[in-house]
Amino acid sequence: MSAGDPRLDRLSLNQWTTRRWTVAQAVDGCVRHGIPAIGLWREAVAEQGPAETAALVKDAGLRVSSLCRGGFLTGADPRLDDNRAAIDEAAALGAACLVLVVGGLPGVVPGGSPGPGFSRDLPGARERVAEALTVLAPYAAGHGVRLALEPLHPMYCADRAVLSTLGQALDLAEPYAAEHVGVVVDAFHIWWDPELTALVARAGDRIASYQVSDFLAPLPADVLLGRGMMGDGVIDFRPLTAAVEAAGYRGDIEVEIFNADVWAADPDEVLATVKRRFVTEVLPPG
Amino acid sequence: MSAGDPRLDRLSLNQWTTRRWTVAQAVDGCVRHGIPAIGLWREAVAEQGPAETAALVKDAGLRVSSLCRGGFLTGADPRLDDNRAAIDEAAALGAACLVLVVGGLPGVVPGGSPGPGFSRDLPGARERVAEALTVLAPYAAGHGVRLALEPLHPMYCADRAVLSTLGQALDLAEPYAAEHVGVVVDAFHIWWDPELTALVARAGDRIASYQVSDFLAPLPADVLLGRGMMGDGVIDFRPLTAAVEAAGYRGDIEVEIFNADVWAADPDEVLATVKRRFVTEVLPPG
Repeated sequence: MSAGDPRLDRLSLNQWTTRRWTVAQAVDGCVRHGIPAIGLWREAVAEQGPAETAALVKDAGLRVSSLCRGGFLTGADPRLDDNRAAIDEAAALGAACLVLVVGGLPGVVPGGSPGPGFSRDLPGARERVAEALTVLAPYAAGHGVRLALEPLHPMYCADRAVLSTLGQALDLAEPYAAEHVGVVVDAFHIWWDPELTALVARAGDRIASYQVSDFLAPLPADVLLGRGMMGDGVIDFRPLTAAVEAAGYRGDIEVEIFNADVWAADPDEVLATVKRRFVTEVLPPG
Repeated sequence: MSAGDPRLDRLSLNQWTTRRWTVAQAVDGCVRHGIPAIGLWREAVAEQGPAETAALVKDAGLRVSSLCRGGFLTGADPRLDDNRAAIDEAAALGAACLVLVVGGLPGVVPGGSPGPGFSRDLPGARERVAEALTVLAPYAAGHGVRLALEPLHPMYCADRAVLSTLGQALDLAEPYAAEHVGVVVDAFHIWWDPELTALVARAGDRIASYQVSDFLAPLPADVLLGRGMMGDGVIDFRPLTAAVEAAGYRGDIEVEIFNADVWAADPDEVLATVKRRFVTEVLPPG
């Protein structure tokens, strides 16, 4: 599996998988490992410097498969300015999409308890996401950026995303052109959905990103870190990959793993495993 | 809120809420607290003795709102004999329904890791549930027992139930008469579903049980114990109760809480809180 291996042509490293690497280190890692694309996180880009990041990925010849993340639109303040800034950053980086994690119930911070401003009004929170999109979608379109609505696993509905299914994401995207508002197909979040195959087919050219990491059983104490290396959990990736292909998606396949053991490991070893498992678990056989 | 309070007319104590109580103690607790119904667990019934349990609830004048649980139908051995035994027990107790927790992926025990016989074939596991129902539904019907298919939160898909949504439960129940195969509406498991209101309406007379406990944020280290006292978490129960009523359900509303703090507390205090919160959080206002 040397650099230039055609089986890796669509592999993307989401940089959170090698979280202790800076952007510069992750870009260098992709180049050394023959990985042609990278998914970036705004915090890391800010640390490296946006202009320097853009230059680094360009000089390395990497595609930016996504920028994570905008969103958190459900509170009293839907943070539209911050989301516009995220769109500007995605445009500057030439990212294929800006991932939106829409936010949980008002007054619940990620991983936290209900706090000031808490509301149990889930339909209302979902309505606010739709409202924010009426502002952000045109802004993104005007800047040549594609928004990517990411349904998160229902166990994160309270604190991270009231967007819980691919069907709901497609309904939200419906009023907008597919090139302006797409959806993320993240195996970890939606593998359980009884309607998955039909929904991926329905998604068609709305698929802006295909992300993979495995669902661990049992989940660790912090459920945010329940994502494992492909093959270490319970997800059958190949039928999903086939469905995503059949829907017409030809973009990058991003490996995004939140896992304490993966983060503790030598990032170069992690990348070697990512490449191996990408071929044995995610790509179609043969 | 004395015994005979009409607001408690449909309250049922699922005995797992006061887990350290025996059946006899839980029956006594219901009587002392004016709670007219109880949900029983097979393990506890076996400890008390099935005949003695039946006599205890009858003498106390309690309804048995459910028996938990049959199911675990997805493995190489679908345990049909054990499920027939569960149906016999439900008949003997006069339970309103036998709850079926259908089982996770083959080879994953509840709360465990993939083990011998593990398979990632989720559609196949779901197919085996449908196949088992072709045997169990007629057996239950012949014994005057109503099966109640329980969709579990998608975070339990791997290890406890490949049945993840109310829609999927209704599809599974479809071939059978509503009085023989119903569904459980458990707020904890399905509160996040964007289609919830429509699905509850669709459920109509299939609703065999309405169960309540809150979804805690953040979840505890063992996600099985993420159920809290109503009002301690993020669920807005009243709109769900209204939807269940509008669908025509007039049966008991069962409080089933899996929570280390609740289990550690004095059961009589727990019941006092259950009654209070049932009125303030679950029942329609006024």
